[in-house]
Formats: sequence, C-alpha cells, structure tokens
Amino acid sequence: MKSTTTTIGVTPGERYSYLDLTDDLRRAIKDSGVTDGAAIAYCPHTTCALLINEWEDGAQRDFRARIEAVVPEGVYYAHDDLERRTQNLDEVHERQNGHSHVKAMLVSATSHSIPVQAGEPMLGRWQRLILFHVFGE
Amino acid sequence: MKSTTTTIGVTPGERYSYLDLTDDLRRAIKDSGVTDGAAIAYCPHTTCALLINEWEDGAQRDFRARIEAVVPEGVYYAHDDLERRTQNLDEVHERQNGHSHVKAMLVSATSHSIPVQAGEPMLGRWQRLILFHVFGE
Amino acid sequence: MKSTTTTIGVTPGERYSYLDLTDDLRRAIKDSGVTDGAAIAYCPHTTCALLINEWEDGAQRDFRARIEAVVPEGVYYAHDDLERRTQNLDEVHERQNGHSHVKAMLVSATSHSIPVQAGEPMLGRWQRLILFHVFGE
Repeated sequence: MKSTTTTIGVTPGERYSYLDLTDDLRRAIKDSGVTDGAAIAYCPHTTCALLINEWEDGAQRDFRARIEAVVPEGVYYAHDDLERRTQNLDEVHERQNGHSHVKAMLVSATSHSIPVQAGEPMLGRWQRLILFHVFGE
Repeated sequence: MKSTTTTIGVTPGERYSYLDLTDDLRRAIKDSGVTDGAAIAYCPHTTCALLINEWEDGAQRDFRARIEAVVPEGVYYAHDDLERRTQNLDEVHERQNGHSHVKAMLVSATSHSIPVQAGEPMLGRWQRLILFHVFGE
Repeated sequence: MKSTTTTIGVTPGERYSYLDLTDDLRRAIKDSGVTDGAAIAYCPHTTCALLINEWEDGAQRDFRARIEAVVPEGVYYAHDDLERRTQNLDEVHERQNGHSHVKAMLVSATSHSIPVQAGEPMLGRWQRLILFHVFGE
C-alpha cells in the first residue's frame, strides 16, 4: 500500500458557487496508481464545504436558499465586528464573512473519505464531489 | 497493512427511517482481518446520512422533527420543478425528493473514518453507526 | 506504511465550549513517525463535534448562537422524556441533553480525515482542529 497527495487548485468562484471536482478526483486517483484503498478529499479553506451529492442546478439552488435561510447574511456576526475583534486581524481586511464561517461549521464538510476500487472512487450513480464556495470573491 | 472493501446491502426503509449498521461494521472489520488501522463507512446514496450517535428512539424522533423543521417538505424545491429541470431527468420519475437532497447536504455525512484497534471500531460507549434514510420508499 | 492511534484525553469543558486540539494533533502525528499519509481525528462522544475552522472568539460565539437558534434548548425533546423512554436509561441520570444529540447529529462532525505531508497535517492557514463540546458539565 502507498500514499500520494495531489493538490487541485481552483479559481475562487462567485459567492455560493458550486464546482464539480469529480473528474479531478478520478484523475488524481489514476495518477496515484492506487487501485484499491481510499481517497481523502480535503479542503483547506474555512468558508467552503465539500459536498457529495447530485449535480443538478435546482438542488444546488435549493441548498443555497436553505442554508441562507438558516444562517442569514445581513444580521450581526461577532466575527465581523471590528470593535470587539482582537484575533487574526490580518485575515479580515474588510471581508464580512462571519456568516460563511457559521455556514461552513454547520455543514462541517471539510473532508471526505471515499473508498477506491479498481482505480475508481466508489461514488454512487448520482454522486459528484462538489466544492461549495460559501464565501466567493 | 492491507485494505479490503465490504458492501452492505440494505433494503430501503421508510422515509426518515434509521438503520443500525454497527454490527455490520464490526463484522466487516473482523472479516477483513485488519486489527489496527481505520474503517471507512461510506454511503453511495444522495438522500441518506451516516450518523454516529446514540440509538434511542426519542433522540431519533427529535432529530427527524428538527431536520424537518429546518428543511421542510411541502415548500417549493427547484429540484422537483419539472418545468425548469433539464439535468438527470431519468432520476426523477415523479419522485419529489428535493427536500431530501437539501437535508443530506446540510448534514453532509456521506463518509466517516473510524479508528480500529484490536479488531474493533473505536466507537464510544453510546455510539452506533446509523443509516438515516431521508428519502425512503 | 504504518498506523498508530493516539488518545487525547480532555477535561470536559463548559457547555458550548471550544477546545483547540491542533497542537495535540501535530504532536500525535510527530510521535507516530508517519511523514506522509493521513490522520484521522475521531471523537467518541455523542454530544460533541470536531470542527475544522478558524479559532476566533467571535466566529465561535456566532456559531454557538446559530446552532442554538436552529436547535433550541427549552423545547420538548423525546430523548429527555422519562415518561416514554425505555432505552439506555443508565445514560440519563437527570441529564437533559436531547438538544445536544440533535445538534451533534445535525453537524455530524464525529470524524475527519486530514492529509499529512512532511510530518505535518495539511491544514489551511486559518484551520484549527476544534472540539465543540455541546453538552458540557
């Protein structure tokens, strides 16, 4: 058994954009030469989520609307309150992204472990690996 | 170190049903012969969640009620709107499951990695591996 | 490749407390001698969540407030109803923690898989591994 790591760089999308990474995942597995084992999908950002679900515009619009209803923008977030904030101040530079951190923590989909068999991720028929960029540019 | 994959087939339960897979997990680990390492629990469906929590009817009823309050059935879901939909149309055949996709993405529990020691998953005293079938038959 | 398991014991914090486990994670990886592979962070408790996000008081306060709004204390939880409950009764001893189980299941962050390279977890710049203790003492 062996282990390899592949970094997939993506251009930040618009706020609440979805990016299909399934083909990148398949390619990374192929390139690793691993035929049986597991792939770990990991996102190093704090305002994103890695969803494994269907790629369908309507479902994506529905999810965006619901997460926005549950964790609305436009209300007070202590994270964005520069009157009180003392930590990680070089991260802020005007970005009002408190709601994005809360959304990302609620979904808590920073990592996934996906079994690999015969060189392919064992995704279900309708499953795609999707980067949900809560706080885009 | 080695890697094996076991598929556990389950009969789709009723909508919002819970299925205890803990014994299946233990058996799969035993059968694999792996004594120290990790088990990956992975669900290939897009309207399910793998919960690791207590098996108690009340807690399950509470969770069901809450997720239904947060992502209600009976409101508009673009995923179910055949007037607008163009993607994955063979998946639909009348199934109004938009709310299920949103619930599954919000929980985002498609996979879990569970340490294994001495041939046993290192589950806590009250932890069970539970398939929550949001959109049953 | 090899596998080791390290148990990090923590003193239960107050309800809704956050505990930064990033240094413990780094130390466990170093002590394992694994330089390239993956670390699994796993929490054996049913009323906790392992968050990977920024360590900032405001964001933590925001998340706590929001999860409390979505899954409020002080409403009926069947899990806490000793009139109906028949399962796992030795767990209860007066603890009204039904809301905590629901919060933990909604977040569903019992485990994370984190790639390791050059002996370090590949956490993003602002990512910390955080134990969110929903139901503290």
